Amino acid sequence: MRRIYLAGPDVFLPDPQAQAQAKKALCARYRFAGVFPLDGGLDLSGLSPFQAGLAIARANEELMRSADLMIANATPFRGPSLDAGTAYEMGFMRALGKPVLAYANVVGSYAERVAALSGQPLARSPAGHLVDDRGMAVEAFDMADNLMIVGAVEASGAKLVLAGVPAGAEHTDLTAFERCLEQVAQLFA
Amino acid sequence: MRRIYLAGPDVFLPDPQAQAQAKKALCARYRFAGVFPLDGGLDLSGLSPFQAGLAIARANEELMRSADLMIANATPFRGPSLDAGTAYEMGFMRALGKPVLAYANVVGSYAERVAALSGQPLARSPAGHLVDDRGMAVEAFDMADNLMIVGAVEASGAKLVLAGVPAGAEHTDLTAFERCLEQVAQLFA
Repeated sequence: MRRIYLAGPDVFLPDPQAQAQAKKALCARYRFAGVFPLDGGLDLSGLSPFQAGLAIARANEELMRSADLMIANATPFRGPSLDAGTAYEMGFMRALGKPVLAYANVVGSYAERVAALSGQPLARSPAGHLVDDRGMAVEAFDMADNLMIVGAVEASGAKLVLAGVPAGAEHTDLTAFERCLEQVAQLFA
Repeated sequence: MRRIYLAGPDVFLPDPQAQAQAKKALCARYRFAGVFPLDGGLDLSGLSPFQAGLAIARANEELMRSADLMIANATPFRGPSLDAGTAYEMGFMRALGKPVLAYANVVGSYAERVAALSGQPLARSPAGHLVDDRGMAVEAFDMADNLMIVGAVEASGAKLVLAGVPAGAEHTDLTAFERCLEQVAQLFA
């Protein structure tokens, strides 16, 4: 049975195991095995916080190496882009040559989210590029997030799934996650 | 001569080529060749914005495969964490087994930046974890950013270099970048 690494900031939810079980149950319905980042069964006792963090990072990388593909929760997290750890893991799986699928429970463009962050509309540089309030260019590729993120999913033969969800359900709603599972089923059909 | 991929949101600066040349000049001083993400020499004419974005993503991945190691600008970008594309690229290089070095022109902890984002102090969950204003856990591993990011640098035998810089110079100051080059020189001594 193919193993799907379940990347995302779901690990930071108040009850991450509930989310893990819900995702794994959906994976099983499509005859895949879900692998959650907390599945490493690590014993962190006696480690400093810093050393514990490193041990978790190593364990997550081993879990990714043991998995066949990934479905990432790429919903914007504490800013206009996805969680940094999730972005890292998408790059990691892509370099391993394994399919990277992803969803984001958000509608609206990356540029709109950057504008919201500064509380003012985006300006244009003298050269005509959209820029943020620091004068740094805002990507304008009709993509929902950074081009490396969207590029990884497209290179995997899939589409980043976007879905509007009720406020507060951005990191728990699994409708878009299940759309990813449908894409996985087609990829391996 | 070893090739260093120069990851970071430097590509979004008003004059990215000036930054590229400055970084490459420093690399040369340490007898390395700097490779900037814009070095692909892509012809994007005739492509839709979306297809152009995908072409850039593919080109960046090829540049990373051609490089021997990476120095990433992991300075917080549009939020408390580094740029999403940079995080992706750090994971990509790490999975290729190539050294990942990084710097961040910032002082202060990740937790402090999360608190600043919401404009209120972090609370504690019933279980005692630091949580943000949505109740999602904030990593508390004495790390400057997500544990996968710090973990990649540590696994490469290096240290994430942190430096305070004058306001406005967060994405141009190269003092910490040069500290990374010194680490690279030691790694390959």
